[in-house]
Amino acid sequence: MIRLIAPDQWERKPVSLDSALEQRVVKVIKDVIANGDSALRDYTSRFDSVDLKSIKVPEHALQTAWERSEPAWQRACENAAENIRRFHQRQLPESWYLDDGDDVRLGQRVIPLDSAGLYVPGGTAAYPSSVLMTAIPAQIAGVGHLSIASPPDPSTALPRQEILAAAHMLNVSHVYSVGGAQAIAAFAFGTESIARVDKIVGPGSTYVTAAKKLVFGHVNIDSLAGPSELVVLADSAANPKWIAYDLMAQAEHDPMASAILVTADRSIAHAVCQELEQLLPQINRHKIAGQSLRDYGAAIITASLDQAIQMVNTIAPEHLELMVSNPWDVLEKVRHAGAVFIGRWSPEPVGDYYAGPNHVLPTGGAAKFSSALGVDDFVRKQSVIGYSERRLGHVADEIALMAHSEGLDAHARSVKIRFSG
Amino acid sequence: MIRLIAPDQWERKPVSLDSALEQRVVKVIKDVIANGDSALRDYTSRFDSVDLKSIKVPEHALQTAWERSEPAWQRACENAAENIRRFHQRQLPESWYLDDGDDVRLGQRVIPLDSAGLYVPGGTAAYPSSVLMTAIPAQIAGVGHLSIASPPDPSTALPRQEILAAAHMLNVSHVYSVGGAQAIAAFAFGTESIARVDKIVGPGSTYVTAAKKLVFGHVNIDSLAGPSELVVLADSAANPKWIAYDLMAQAEHDPMASAILVTADRSIAHAVCQELEQLLPQINRHKIAGQSLRDYGAAIITASLDQAIQMVNTIAPEHLELMVSNPWDVLEKVRHAGAVFIGRWSPEPVGDYYAGPNHVLPTGGAAKFSSALGVDDFVRKQSVIGYSERRLGHVADEIALMAHSEGLDAHARSVKIRFSG
Repeated sequence: MIRLIAPDQWERKPVSLDSALEQRVVKVIKDVIANGDSALRDYTSRFDSVDLKSIKVPEHALQTAWERSEPAWQRACENAAENIRRFHQRQLPESWYLDDGDDVRLGQRVIPLDSAGLYVPGGTAAYPSSVLMTAIPAQIAGVGHLSIASPPDPSTALPRQEILAAAHMLNVSHVYSVGGAQAIAAFAFGTESIARVDKIVGPGSTYVTAAKKLVFGHVNIDSLAGPSELVVLADSAANPKWIAYDLMAQAEHDPMASAILVTADRSIAHAVCQELEQLLPQINRHKIAGQSLRDYGAAIITASLDQAIQMVNTIAPEHLELMVSNPWDVLEKVRHAGAVFIGRWSPEPVGDYYAGPNHVLPTGGAAKFSSALGVDDFVRKQSVIGYSERRLGHVADEIALMAHSEGLDAHARSVKIRFSG
Repeated sequence: MIRLIAPDQWERKPVSLDSALEQRVVKVIKDVIANGDSALRDYTSRFDSVDLKSIKVPEHALQTAWERSEPAWQRACENAAENIRRFHQRQLPESWYLDDGDDVRLGQRVIPLDSAGLYVPGGTAAYPSSVLMTAIPAQIAGVGHLSIASPPDPSTALPRQEILAAAHMLNVSHVYSVGGAQAIAAFAFGTESIARVDKIVGPGSTYVTAAKKLVFGHVNIDSLAGPSELVVLADSAANPKWIAYDLMAQAEHDPMASAILVTADRSIAHAVCQELEQLLPQINRHKIAGQSLRDYGAAIITASLDQAIQMVNTIAPEHLELMVSNPWDVLEKVRHAGAVFIGRWSPEPVGDYYAGPNHVLPTGGAAKFSSALGVDDFVRKQSVIGYSERRLGHVADEIALMAHSEGLDAHARSVKIRFSG
């Protein structure tokens, strides 16, 4: 089911820049810039098999979706939202000023974005939880205008019911029945129905990701999401069946998702493989999970726990479960992982839905240089420099010297003129 | 010299995606990936007219550069560095944990990047101050390995002396005599001489910017820098000569730099224009500054101070000088600007070199969605989720319900199995 390999046999699957795909996406973006809503309707008809009456989802449809959902599901969502709010509230940065003497005041003002566009994927990976994970940090930051784009289902000509219900719960009233690269183009450049936004966030298909990279610069984006990943780091005390379920939960996302066990205990690795053989047929999405496990899964057998931790840092996974006896000690040695799940009672779904930290996380090794989506993604920090006559007089010569060393004499003069009467 | 225009006559010069330039940059990147150092030598010979003996600048050359520089300049740099350190120290985020009851512990660990590459432009825009502004936040963050790339001068076959001296002052010992898209490719993919880095920061030419956008995803980048900009917001009390110098200081950077006066007082606008006519011939870089003022400069006359502030928010300039009687009050209404300079004693060069806040700032309207370079650029935030048996037991049904609503039954099972014996 999954390959048992040595540490040096692991290699990251290269993410090739598919330039043919990029060319198709460029065409979609140009078409949306040129033709606006009419281009959105065309692509939605072609790719989603839906003839849109209205690009914007009517607000009563959001309310209806909420009212028709199960009360127990509503309560779960409300509790999850409350947890997500509590965690992200702690991230909210504050403006500050430094008094630097001589009446000099330096500072950093925190200002929310005017607007943000939240992309929520559709299809087999339609996650209402992504509405919570993207909208709540934006709301805590104080973003003025929030909108959601998600592709419509052919059966209803609307995004999935749960997505609409979650939007209603969070009072996000601008929801658009558009997906793919065309949705990203609409957010970046605006159409008759969809207002341009300052930043686009949220995961998506390879088309969505390519479009986000192309529009980056015109607007801001969060990061370039790839397939989801889990590494389970286990020692001899770990329960093979629980590990098998955790790996399958990862693998059921997507045939390209990757679920990897890293352990110094070969017998655990064998036991997990046996459990997987037995359990896989029992889950609904066994075809997807099986393909993912065969193509991207692995059990990496290391010589020691330390080498296993080193392996984790090399992989830099999106999600890491520490199924070891002393997880908090091991955590101190983990440099590269997007989110770490501590011990046997923290399976990944706890974080995917409920605990509070964000589930939009860096993938494909990007945990080495990026962070989870958070409140910081929805604010800007503006520098403030308030100098005084006294201080400027004291340091004018030093500033002029630095300016001259760069050959910029007007820089020097703009300071000196203020003291030359 | 500069056009006097009404607010509705201003429009942002479109930044076109020059696909011919992008194709050339793709070629450079592929060449560096395939041929490493040998490609770097070829391009440096072709573009910089330098035949490199060593790609890495010998460490003794850094020391020599420092020792040969003027003591007064050394002191100015040390004082500027101290100010920059004090400001950025205040930005350093701390790891934190939330105790969520039931032995549940959630947190966010702040972890510095393993490595970062600092790009420092050469040519007429060779700024040793950029060494300070990029290296100091990285050092405060605790980045493990820092390196600098800057194109060599034909006269010395090394980057400019002041850049080497600044690197020495800050103990950055890995400096490479390589510029342009080839330097960005080397940082992103590594060569025999240059180690791959996790993040590339710093401003550069259109080639450098195109290369940064292309490698984004393989590594992280800071932002996509365009030509530098200043808006001076002035009321009747402002000094036209000082404003003229401040605009010239901006314009001398680059023929594409933009220096704009916004005022509700037409007579101030006329006075500034007259000063510019008189003063421009006196500055060394009057050709560059003249071209910039003619092509990208403007005096925008508004009907009121409020309309002037609105104009500022529309432009979202990189730098904003508030040359008004009540600058701190006006600041409260400024949403979109990278850095704000308060009052008559805060000309832009104070921030370019000395005061402490960063001079790597969002350009081209990106102040609407991006921030100055800072310590945050050099760390990642890792989420930590430590659930307990008791809490997981309480919420297992809610998590399972949310998982089922997304069609992910293995997610539900991975939680429930832990309570099924």
